Amino acid sequence: MRIVVLAGGIGGARFLRGLKAAAPDADITVIGNTGDDIHLFGLKVCPDLDTVMYTLGGGINEEQGWGRSDETFKVKEELAAYGVGPEWFGLGDRDFATHIVRTQMLSAGYPLSAVTEALCARWKPGVRLLPMSDDRVETHVAVDDEGERKAIHFQEYWVRLRASVPAHAVVPVGADQAKPAPGVLDAIAEADVVLFPPSNPVVSIGTILAVPGIREAIADAGVPVVGLSPIVGDAPVRGMADKVLAAVGVESTASAVARHYGSGLLDGWLVDSSDEGAVAEVEAAGIRCRAVPLMMTDTDATAAMVREALALAEEVRA
Amino acid sequence: MRIVVLAGGIGGARFLRGLKAAAPDADITVIGNTGDDIHLFGLKVCPDLDTVMYTLGGGINEEQGWGRSDETFKVKEELAAYGVGPEWFGLGDRDFATHIVRTQMLSAGYPLSAVTEALCARWKPGVRLLPMSDDRVETHVAVDDEGERKAIHFQEYWVRLRASVPAHAVVPVGADQAKPAPGVLDAIAEADVVLFPPSNPVVSIGTILAVPGIREAIADAGVPVVGLSPIVGDAPVRGMADKVLAAVGVESTASAVARHYGSGLLDGWLVDSSDEGAVAEVEAAGIRCRAVPLMMTDTDATAAMVREALALAEEVRA
Repeated sequence: MRIVVLAGGIGGARFLRGLKAAAPDADITVIGNTGDDIHLFGLKVCPDLDTVMYTLGGGINEEQGWGRSDETFKVKEELAAYGVGPEWFGLGDRDFATHIVRTQMLSAGYPLSAVTEALCARWKPGVRLLPMSDDRVETHVAVDDEGERKAIHFQEYWVRLRASVPAHAVVPVGADQAKPAPGVLDAIAEADVVLFPPSNPVVSIGTILAVPGIREAIADAGVPVVGLSPIVGDAPVRGMADKVLAAVGVESTASAVARHYGSGLLDGWLVDSSDEGAVAEVEAAGIRCRAVPLMMTDTDATAAMVREALALAEEVRA
Repeated sequence: MRIVVLAGGIGGARFLRGLKAAAPDADITVIGNTGDDIHLFGLKVCPDLDTVMYTLGGGINEEQGWGRSDETFKVKEELAAYGVGPEWFGLGDRDFATHIVRTQMLSAGYPLSAVTEALCARWKPGVRLLPMSDDRVETHVAVDDEGERKAIHFQEYWVRLRASVPAHAVVPVGADQAKPAPGVLDAIAEADVVLFPPSNPVVSIGTILAVPGIREAIADAGVPVVGLSPIVGDAPVRGMADKVLAAVGVESTASAVARHYGSGLLDGWLVDSSDEGAVAEVEAAGIRCRAVPLMMTDTDATAAMVREALALAEEVRA
C-alpha cells in the first residue's frame, strides 16, 4: 500500500511513528512542511523536516519532541558571547551540524529535496521524506507591535512570543510562486491513500496545501483522503493551533477544522471520542466521520489511531 | 610608541603576549597572515587571526596553542556521522561559533577586516588586529602524490600530512592580485618600529610580504625593522618551518633566514644564544645581529626577547 502523509513537525512525526508500527509494509511518502524554515546565523534550518527525520531515525529529544537527544549548547553560548542572536531559538551543537551540512549542500547548488535525501541517508527514517517544495516559502504572521501592525517570521511568533499576541493573518510568503518538489505530485498520483495527521491545519498542512498543484493533486487523485483532528474538546492537543485558526477565521473545534479542509479535499475525518457530538456536523458537510481515541500517548495508541484512519479510508473507498 | 608586527599563528600570538608585557603602553598593530585561511563545511576559517585573537583575549587552549579552551567536539562528531569531512581539521564547538559569525558577516558583505574588528570587540586582544588583505589568498603546496605532482591546500599539507612529504613549491595563490587591507599601509607608514616575530618565514611572514605593497611599505618606512629567528640550532623551535624553507631553497639556519629576508628589508636580527656563530654571517649580509635567549618558554622569557628586539631597533635607529 502506498501512503502519502502531509506532515508538520512534532505531531506529524509522532503520527508517522504510529503509521510505521501499524503498517510496517506500507510504502510511505511524507510531504513535509517547509514554511517554518528559517535562516539563522547564515544557516538554513528546516524544523519540520528535521523533526520527522530525527524522530523516525532515533535521534530526537523524546521529552521535548524536537531537537537532538544528548544535546549540548556550546555553539549557541558562544554566539551569544559575540552578541549574535536570536537567543530564543534553541539550536544545539548536534543540531547545528545538520544545518551546516544542509547549508553547505544548498550553497553548492543542490535543491532542498536532494539535500534532504542526503541527510536521510544517515537517519534512515524508513519513509521517503520530501520537502513540499524546493522553493523558499516562509510563513509570516501579522501581529500588532506597539500600535503598529507588522509581519514577523512564524518562528518568532511561535517560539519567541509563544503565540501570546493575536495573529491577524498567517501568510505563507512565496507559496504562490513555489513549485512542488520533484516527486511530490507523482507520489500523490500513485498513492492508495492520503493521510492528514493531527498536525496544525493552518501553518503545517495548510502551508503544504498552499503550494499550487498539491491541493489539486490530492483532490484529483481519486483515492481516500483521511484526516485526524488536532483539536480535542475545543483545544489543540498540543501546541497553539487555536491561535492561528483564529487568524484564518476558523473556530477551534474538531468539526470546524474538517469543514475548513472541506469535502472537496477530505473524504474522512476522525475526531476524538470526547467529541462524539461533532460527528453529525462533519457528516452533514459531506465528510465521513468517526469518533475514536485520538491521544498519541505512545506508539501503540498512535498505531491504533492510524488503523482507524486506514479503516475509514477503506470504508470510503468501498 | 607605535609598533607593527607581522604575525603568523602560534609563534606570533605568543610573541605578542610578550610584547604586551614588555611594552604595555605601546600602540600595537598586528598584520595577520590569512594565507592559511580555509573554507571548511561552507565556513570561512582564519586560523592565524583566531590564534592571535584567542591567545591575547584569554580564550586559547594553552597546551596546544590553537583552538579554544574548554572545548568540545559535538558538531564535528555529527558532521562525521553525516560522512562530511575533512576529519583531520580539529574544529571544536566553541570555535565553530567564531566561523559561523565570520561567515555570516562575510555573506552579508562585510570585508574580512571589518569582520575581524567585530570579532575582536568580544575578545579585546589589546592590539589592533588587521588581516593582511581582505582579498582571498590561499597558500598551496606542491607535493607528489602517487607519482603525480599536485597542489594541495597548506592546511592539508600541514595538518593532514604533518609536512611528512617533500614540498616542491609553496605558492600563496591570489597574493599577486590581493590588496593590503584598509589600515595596513597606513599602520606601516606611521610605525616607529616593525617587528617580525619568530613565525614561519615562508608560510606566515612570507605570505604577508607577498601581498603587493606591504614589503615595499616596510622597506620604505624608514624605521627599524627587526626580526627574531624561528630557527634555533638548525631546527625550527616549533612547527615544521624547515620543510617549507627547503621548498623555497633556503637552509634551515638562523643566518639563512635573515639573508632570505635580506638587508633591503631587515635592519636587525636576533638569533638564539646557541647560534652565536651565526652573528658574523648575518652582519656580513648587512643586517645588525645579536645572540640572545630565544625560547618563548613563558611570557617573562618572551618579554625579555621583545626587549632585546626593541633595544636592537633603537641601536639601529641611532
